[in-house]
Amino acid sequence: MSAFEKLQQHLKQLPGLGYRSAERIALHLLVEKPESLPLLVAALEDAAKNVRRCVRCGNLAGAELCAICSDERRNQRMVCVVEHVPDLVALERSGAWRGIYHVLHGRLSPVQGVGPGDLNFAPLLERLQAGEVDELILALANDVEGEATCHYLIEQVPAERSVKVTRIGFGLPSGGGVLYADAVTLKSALDARRSYR
Amino acid sequence: MSAFEKLQQHLKQLPGLGYRSAERIALHLLVEKPESLPLLVAALEDAAKNVRRCVRCGNLAGAELCAICSDERRNQRMVCVVEHVPDLVALERSGAWRGIYHVLHGRLSPVQGVGPGDLNFAPLLERLQAGEVDELILALANDVEGEATCHYLIEQVPAERSVKVTRIGFGLPSGGGVLYADAVTLKSALDARRSYR
Repeated sequence: MSAFEKLQQHLKQLPGLGYRSAERIALHLLVEKPESLPLLVAALEDAAKNVRRCVRCGNLAGAELCAICSDERRNQRMVCVVEHVPDLVALERSGAWRGIYHVLHGRLSPVQGVGPGDLNFAPLLERLQAGEVDELILALANDVEGEATCHYLIEQVPAERSVKVTRIGFGLPSGGGVLYADAVTLKSALDARRSYR
Repeated sequence: MSAFEKLQQHLKQLPGLGYRSAERIALHLLVEKPESLPLLVAALEDAAKNVRRCVRCGNLAGAELCAICSDERRNQRMVCVVEHVPDLVALERSGAWRGIYHVLHGRLSPVQGVGPGDLNFAPLLERLQAGEVDELILALANDVEGEATCHYLIEQVPAERSVKVTRIGFGLPSGGGVLYADAVTLKSALDARRSYR
């Protein structure tokens, strides 16, 4: 295999890229804008050196622990479980959560061959075993795979520890009326109805 | 800007990637599959070292000249002009062309700010000036930008050299009937009608 084909293979393995888009990017970097390739390599190496995974929660970190895990003003015993780092960023932007996070980096999917060993469960299960968690909020998606991941996690919570496990609420989004909501959202919204008195 | 944001900026400049897909790839390389980052960097560096742009035609090359430009069995005086390397690969796969190529790496687009200086015109114009070309086949797309690029090239052909300039034929694709063809293709097919006798 030529160096070009090898590069194309590597690019194709990145999320969201197929054969054609990998080819297009490889051509861009090698013959159309070759001056951009060393800049990209430098940015990759710089990020690899300066950005890592928080050993505790899996968030982006500049040191051993991320900024959230090392912030003592946050409740370190309340853990919100999310699929990916952008989910965490969205929750942070809302300012609605003062606990910490745990990033799984995906969700269980037997169809796509993603099992528990492929996700970042271990550090969370250790903390649960050690009794360091009071509440676990599962902020995973409202679909079959999100559901499966929730069930797996609930089974892993040690029975001898009194951990409150909740799932984030589902229903109509703010600003969205019944007319524009899809069937699954409407079902969730009806299931989650609350009594006025 | 953090090293993560810088990497995201660099990725966003690659063709076909937007803000979200760049973020997704950066997270994949830094926290989800960090073991894949050094492999990608190695593939990029290896390709940068071993793959370059043919100085004559702009194709991918392992040396000064690409395999086609250095093949003496091909007619080096008949030049087929294409937009991108994959166009050249498609024509090679057809086995229908025994001349050489010239890759522009794009086409003129005033709307997107692509002028003659941004494309690989210079080596072709030099060859035209030097009288090294007998026929120029323009295999550019059948749209406004392809058309503009053809007109620009035709104007650049030196009047004192007798160069035959043709454009690749347009019409119904093989295996496609009138029913499924779009309006522009049908117009081209009618314009390109040939008399039986």
